[in-house]
Amino acid sequence: MPDTYPITVRNRVKRLHERGRYDHESVHGILDAAMLCHIAYVIDGQPYCTPTAFWREGAHLYWHGSSASRMLRTQRDGLAVCLTVTHLDSLVLARSGFNHSVDYRSAMCFGTAHVVDDPAAKAQALDAMIDRFYPGRAAELRPITEQELKATMVVSMEIEEASAKVRSKGIGDDEADYTLPIYAVRFPVTQVIGAAEPCPRLSAGVAVPLGLAGFTPGRRLDDIILESHRATVPRESR
Amino acid sequence: MPDTYPITVRNRVKRLHERGRYDHESVHGILDAAMLCHIAYVIDGQPYCTPTAFWREGAHLYWHGSSASRMLRTQRDGLAVCLTVTHLDSLVLARSGFNHSVDYRSAMCFGTAHVVDDPAAKAQALDAMIDRFYPGRAAELRPITEQELKATMVVSMEIEEASAKVRSKGIGDDEADYTLPIYAVRFPVTQVIGAAEPCPRLSAGVAVPLGLAGFTPGRRLDDIILESHRATVPRESR
Repeated sequence: MPDTYPITVRNRVKRLHERGRYDHESVHGILDAAMLCHIAYVIDGQPYCTPTAFWREGAHLYWHGSSASRMLRTQRDGLAVCLTVTHLDSLVLARSGFNHSVDYRSAMCFGTAHVVDDPAAKAQALDAMIDRFYPGRAAELRPITEQELKATMVVSMEIEEASAKVRSKGIGDDEADYTLPIYAVRFPVTQVIGAAEPCPRLSAGVAVPLGLAGFTPGRRLDDIILESHRATVPRESR
Repeated sequence: MPDTYPITVRNRVKRLHERGRYDHESVHGILDAAMLCHIAYVIDGQPYCTPTAFWREGAHLYWHGSSASRMLRTQRDGLAVCLTVTHLDSLVLARSGFNHSVDYRSAMCFGTAHVVDDPAAKAQALDAMIDRFYPGRAAELRPITEQELKATMVVSMEIEEASAKVRSKGIGDDEADYTLPIYAVRFPVTQVIGAAEPCPRLSAGVAVPLGLAGFTPGRRLDDIILESHRATVPRESR
C-alpha cells in the first residue's frame, strides 16, 4: 500500500490547495478520530446525504444499517459514494467578514460501496465495529441472533481516492487590518463526553468494563474514538 | 407557508419511521442550532459530500464560498442538492450489539441551489451570515471590498422537502436482556466552546462586543448558535 492516495480530478483540493493533504497518515488520522460520517450517494439522479457510524480497517471503510434501508439496498450492487468526516476545531472571528473562518479537519473518501453478503464475515464485521468503538465489548454482549443478523446489512468500500483538508491557523487577517480597533478572537470548539449514565435497570454487581476506562467525563470524543481504534484494530489494518 | 413539509418518496423517513418528523419547528430547530452542514451534489454522475457553514432564513438555506469553488460553480445554474445537519447527543451502549445506538438529531433538506448574482443582495447576505452567528458583528467589521465581493459566491436554496430524524431514548434493550449481567450505559455527548483566545495583536482598548456575551467557556455550541439565530434573523424569517 503506497503512503499517499492518488491525486485525480475527483479528489484534488482546488480551493485553498495549501490546506490539502493526501498522505495516509493525515487522511486516516481524521477518519479514525470520528464515529460519524456523512455519505453522499445518488439514486435516480437525486443526491442524498446520510449521516451514519462508520469505521476503517486498512484501505476499507465499513458502515451498517437495516437491510430495509434505501441507502444500503441501493449500495448492494456497487454504488459510487463519497464519505466525508469533519471535525470542527474553532470559530475564527477576524477583523473583516472575508477573513472569518473556522479551524477544522476534514477527510473526503471516494469509492464504490459493496454489501458484505457472507453471514460469517458480516457477523465478524459487526463485532469489529463494537470493539473498534468500545474495546473488548463484543465478547461481553448477548450474542447476535440469526434474525438480527438477517435484519442487518454491512457495507464495505475500498478507498480509491481520498483527501484531507486542515485549517488550524486561527486568525489570519490582512496585514493592514491588524491595527483597526476591532475585536478579533478564536473560540476553541470541542466535542466532549459527559458523566456516564448507567442503565437504571443494571443487574446487581455488574462492574464497569475495563474497556471503558478511557470514557471519563469531559474528555474529547475524538481522542477517545482514536484511542479505541488504536487499541483494537489489528496493527496491519491501522 | 404551511407548518409541515410535504412528504414524498424523496424525504419520507423509511427506516425507524417513528423517528421521522416533517413539521417546520422540528426541522428548523435542528438546522438553526448548527453552523456546519454537509451538502451532497452530483457532478458528471459522481456524488460529492462537502462540509460548509450555512444559515436559514424562512424556507431558504444559504451557504457561500470562493467563486472558483467547483461545488459553487456547478451550483450556479441550478443544481439538485441534499443538505444534512447532524447533532450527536449520546453514545448508547446496550446489552446486545444490535441495540447499540446513538441519540441524535438530524435534518435532511432537498432543493435546487442557485447563485445569488446581484452584488447588493450578495453583500447583504454575507453581512446576514456574520450577524446570524455573531449578533451585531457585521457593522463592527472592516467593510467588504469590491475584490472580496467578486471572489465570493453566495448560493441559496429553497427547501422543497425536508425531514428530521430524532433519537433521544437512550438505552432500549430487548425486555429479556435487561436481567443479563452486562454493563449498559449512556454517555452524553456535547459540542462546547472553550475560553476565548483574543488575537495577540488586538489594538489597545478594544473591548469584547456585547454580541459575544453568550460565548462563554463550556457552553454548548448548539445553544449559542440557536440563540444567535433567534437574536438576529427577522421574526418573519425565523
